[in-house]
Amino acid sequence: MFEAHFQTFEESEGGVALTARLAAFREELTRRQLTGFVIPRADQQQNEYVAPSEERLAWLTGFTGSAGLAIALAKGAALFVDGRYTLQAAKQVDTEAWTIASLIEPPPESWLTKHLTAGDRVGFDPWLHTSAAAERLAAACAKAGAELIAVDSNPVDSVWTDRPAPPLGPVTVHGAPFAGEAETDKLSRIRAEMTKLGVDALVLSDSHAVAWTFNIRGADVSHTPLPLSYALVPKDGRPTIFIDHRKLSNLSRDHLERNADVREPDALTPALTELAATGASIALDTATAADALTRLIASAGGKPVRGSDPVALLKAVKNDAEIRGTRSAHQRDAVALARFLAWIDREAPKGTLTEIDAVEALETFRRETGALKDVSFPTIAGTGPNGAIVHYRVTRKSNRRIMPGDLLLIDSGAQYEDGTTDVTRTIAIGTPTDEMRDRFTRVLRGHIAIARAVFPDGTTGAQLDTLARQFLWQAGVDFEHGTGHGVGSYLSVHEGPARISKLGTTPLKRGMILSNEPGYYKTDAFGIRIENLELVTAIDIPGAEKPMNGFETLTLAPIDRRLIDRRISKKEVMWLNDYHARVRREVRPHLDEATKVWLDAATEPLPLEDHAPG
Amino acid sequence: MFEAHFQTFEESEGGVALTARLAAFREELTRRQLTGFVIPRADQQQNEYVAPSEERLAWLTGFTGSAGLAIALAKGAALFVDGRYTLQAAKQVDTEAWTIASLIEPPPESWLTKHLTAGDRVGFDPWLHTSAAAERLAAACAKAGAELIAVDSNPVDSVWTDRPAPPLGPVTVHGAPFAGEAETDKLSRIRAEMTKLGVDALVLSDSHAVAWTFNIRGADVSHTPLPLSYALVPKDGRPTIFIDHRKLSNLSRDHLERNADVREPDALTPALTELAATGASIALDTATAADALTRLIASAGGKPVRGSDPVALLKAVKNDAEIRGTRSAHQRDAVALARFLAWIDREAPKGTLTEIDAVEALETFRRETGALKDVSFPTIAGTGPNGAIVHYRVTRKSNRRIMPGDLLLIDSGAQYEDGTTDVTRTIAIGTPTDEMRDRFTRVLRGHIAIARAVFPDGTTGAQLDTLARQFLWQAGVDFEHGTGHGVGSYLSVHEGPARISKLGTTPLKRGMILSNEPGYYKTDAFGIRIENLELVTAIDIPGAEKPMNGFETLTLAPIDRRLIDRRISKKEVMWLNDYHARVRREVRPHLDEATKVWLDAATEPLPLEDHAPG
Repeated sequence: MFEAHFQTFEESEGGVALTARLAAFREELTRRQLTGFVIPRADQQQNEYVAPSEERLAWLTGFTGSAGLAIALAKGAALFVDGRYTLQAAKQVDTEAWTIASLIEPPPESWLTKHLTAGDRVGFDPWLHTSAAAERLAAACAKAGAELIAVDSNPVDSVWTDRPAPPLGPVTVHGAPFAGEAETDKLSRIRAEMTKLGVDALVLSDSHAVAWTFNIRGADVSHTPLPLSYALVPKDGRPTIFIDHRKLSNLSRDHLERNADVREPDALTPALTELAATGASIALDTATAADALTRLIASAGGKPVRGSDPVALLKAVKNDAEIRGTRSAHQRDAVALARFLAWIDREAPKGTLTEIDAVEALETFRRETGALKDVSFPTIAGTGPNGAIVHYRVTRKSNRRIMPGDLLLIDSGAQYEDGTTDVTRTIAIGTPTDEMRDRFTRVLRGHIAIARAVFPDGTTGAQLDTLARQFLWQAGVDFEHGTGHGVGSYLSVHEGPARISKLGTTPLKRGMILSNEPGYYKTDAFGIRIENLELVTAIDIPGAEKPMNGFETLTLAPIDRRLIDRRISKKEVMWLNDYHARVRREVRPHLDEATKVWLDAATEPLPLEDHAPG
Repeated sequence: MFEAHFQTFEESEGGVALTARLAAFREELTRRQLTGFVIPRADQQQNEYVAPSEERLAWLTGFTGSAGLAIALAKGAALFVDGRYTLQAAKQVDTEAWTIASLIEPPPESWLTKHLTAGDRVGFDPWLHTSAAAERLAAACAKAGAELIAVDSNPVDSVWTDRPAPPLGPVTVHGAPFAGEAETDKLSRIRAEMTKLGVDALVLSDSHAVAWTFNIRGADVSHTPLPLSYALVPKDGRPTIFIDHRKLSNLSRDHLERNADVREPDALTPALTELAATGASIALDTATAADALTRLIASAGGKPVRGSDPVALLKAVKNDAEIRGTRSAHQRDAVALARFLAWIDREAPKGTLTEIDAVEALETFRRETGALKDVSFPTIAGTGPNGAIVHYRVTRKSNRRIMPGDLLLIDSGAQYEDGTTDVTRTIAIGTPTDEMRDRFTRVLRGHIAIARAVFPDGTTGAQLDTLARQFLWQAGVDFEHGTGHGVGSYLSVHEGPARISKLGTTPLKRGMILSNEPGYYKTDAFGIRIENLELVTAIDIPGAEKPMNGFETLTLAPIDRRLIDRRISKKEVMWLNDYHARVRREVRPHLDEATKVWLDAATEPLPLEDHAPG
């Protein structure tokens, strides 16, 4: 009955089988007079989800994590992953052939310097690294007296005989009711930013930026409606969009051609060369622009101006249509969530369901809204100890039975044409322990502190992050991830530049959407996370001396009252009761009778009495 | 009866009288073929308090603020000050001759570029600017096609005929009972840091660093026991201290010579030149090292390595002797504070006292401890509207009568040989308004949130700053300064590198002392600030998963209970009652009978009932 269309549960191939590939790859390097090569888990635009044709790291090593980098030298080879992937990497790759090393501290560069000998020639594909990353690699090589060499074609592709073709997902027009702003208006705002930067042109090296600017969406990668493409926006005159024409319908092509010239991707290099030859200064996005673009512009006589893509900030601030859209997307999503949570409460205590059952059921309820385009990322459904693995993704092998006494952590999201959702709930199966209730209550109090926060215009996410951690700190515990990330509008579920984290230095602007997701993870025991999406809105305070902002909660799903202990304060109980009353008001009318009954119980107000003062 | 020895109340001379000096200065510039000159309010080491011989800005312009910069061109001249000094500058300088402009945003550099013409030659004294500042000036000149020229001698000094001689404050030994660590041990820790930096030598360009390293104190500037001096610490071999021998007694000279060679200040340049000539890489402190030092090392063939002085962090972490010392310094200071606060409560309501009376009384009570070396900064005593001026310093002209209905803000500190104090109390004279009590309560709740904070090892001041502001933000108000600064041990009352501010990126280490001083300022009405010093200490939490820290409050003075309203939570009342009980326990035994009676009333516990839940 339930099934998942947008997520698989297969283990990737891996282990010894792949070592032949490494051998073939090394021969290829020898043919090219290279003594080593750097293979990042990246496409040309540093996308979070990459097309199968770009999964070079997985093909060569077997490692399928979402972040990683490999370096193959004549003698040694290493795969670099961060803490969350150490175990998975050891399982997936042939550790005879590959050393598993740290991606963060120490960085791969220090391994590289240690293992190089003077005269070594290390290749890299300049289309798959940002200029900053390339500079770090070059420095590491130089230290060892070796040379970093940018190759014209990727040697992995030469030996990857059955490499999939690049994706050709159809491009659709993101209509005015959803986009809320005409391409022409967006372009003139972008040009105003270019004037501030004092540049002659801007390269949109991020397909999200192209999609936002020209109001299109695509289907080239999983979970994000991304139309892989580039755009070149001159200060005056028509922009050019570089995109595979096979992805365009007459409709979408006509739409694009109203404001831009549309050319094939291979036209980017000549176009950029021509422009650079005039000595133009051309803005490139530090975060997504390939080093190849910087090199191309510089060698053609242009001036590459590296900085943050001005479109990122414009895109992060949602307009009224996008805000209306996300509100209805969240209401729709809430109906599926309520049906799912009611079903879990009914079925899970029997001890017969598995994590995969939960994933399939949730996706099915979302599909039954009739509006689901995709899940916004593979659902994380971790019960018991699996809940403590922050980036857990269930497979047939890891799949675990949901048992009474477990905490079930479900982090999931949906892509609807009017908005993108991302929500985490932690559910008590049977009776939770006092420790579980204590930790859950501390996480909830942090979540509420963010939801209730009032802060002056210009406040950054870094200034709010501690509010989410304070109650955990009081118990000597913490969570090792940020409190929140930006969220796109029928675009990426992880969107910059603003975030709630000690590194979040971007001021929070009205119209931005951020997640609020503190957690607590007890290794080998249980995981807790409570996540709602929040909209930054103006807060009107009588007598205020400056413009103040706060959050409007977008997500509408009950928070498990069985996990709350008496340490929660009266003010926090008031917030929770108001929130649950709102969930009832906005979601109940759209539910079937059985789910209504469940919702009424799940949103019962907590008594204000017998709660500790804050 | 009461008098101030360490603070004056005179207005500085100013206005038209000084314009003759600008004319003479311009002639001097012409003699030197300069079309302009930059005059910072700075000495060779960027000290907060500078010797009279270094007050070039005040001598030339009449402006006596603690921060500022002047640029005199052939045609125009401008004085740059920050927001807190705009009014004072307008009063003190001849605005016919000087334009008053912004020191921060836009910075003086943009004014400079605007007012320069190609070919202009702008001079600056490389001993009075850091290299970073010099680079900003050079860039601004270049933009206008002008040249920035480092002069060998300062043209202000050529026309400043009655310039005072440099100070010759006697140097004393800071004995082991106070210092707690031998110079040799400090030197080996410094050398360990130099090894990490991979440098051959370190220049101590900050007299605080010299004083800490060699366990001496001095008397060259106001309010800080600073022995103006330099030191050169080679990786191996004896360090050299550069200091005017007239400041040394046989005792202090012998003390210094046990671990270093002692030479005259003018020996620094040749010594550094000689070392640099060997190609040595020499570490310089970004914050305090004069650009002249960078130039000198580079031109002699050495490698200047600019970074943060490793001594700053070592010095900020107090050892057990320093912590014992600061505790007794604060107990001693508390006796003077109690006598002062009792006296204010008795006398002020009569409406006969002035701000100067308050300053003189407080200093007198501190002198009567028999241990006062100096006040750690000029006492800020602002009543009514003067309290809203954050950096207010009372003068005969501004001196205001303390009237019933006022809030009196007193921010003061003392230098004792065993420790440095800094404390602010806000006192209700007569009956406060509801608004005053509301604002005071919000400030107090923020202060308590910092005092009660528990945070993991590695947490920065930036991560705590918001805790102090949250209750003010809820009312739409804020304060426009940091929450806290580091404090030295019988050294500077403003000590880096750690601070509690959104810019405080240094992790808080156990043994650091920081101020906790949120406030609220209503222009033309009243000012509120509550400041205690806090010691970073380990907090033991059963079941903690990581090392946790918190604060031990060092300051021991009653907080005005008459200004607290019902919005304070029970937990906060408990903190306040515990704090007041501790003040009673530790201070009462040392008080006269009358003050004991006052203290008992001032530290009465607040009832736990009838307080709003948090």
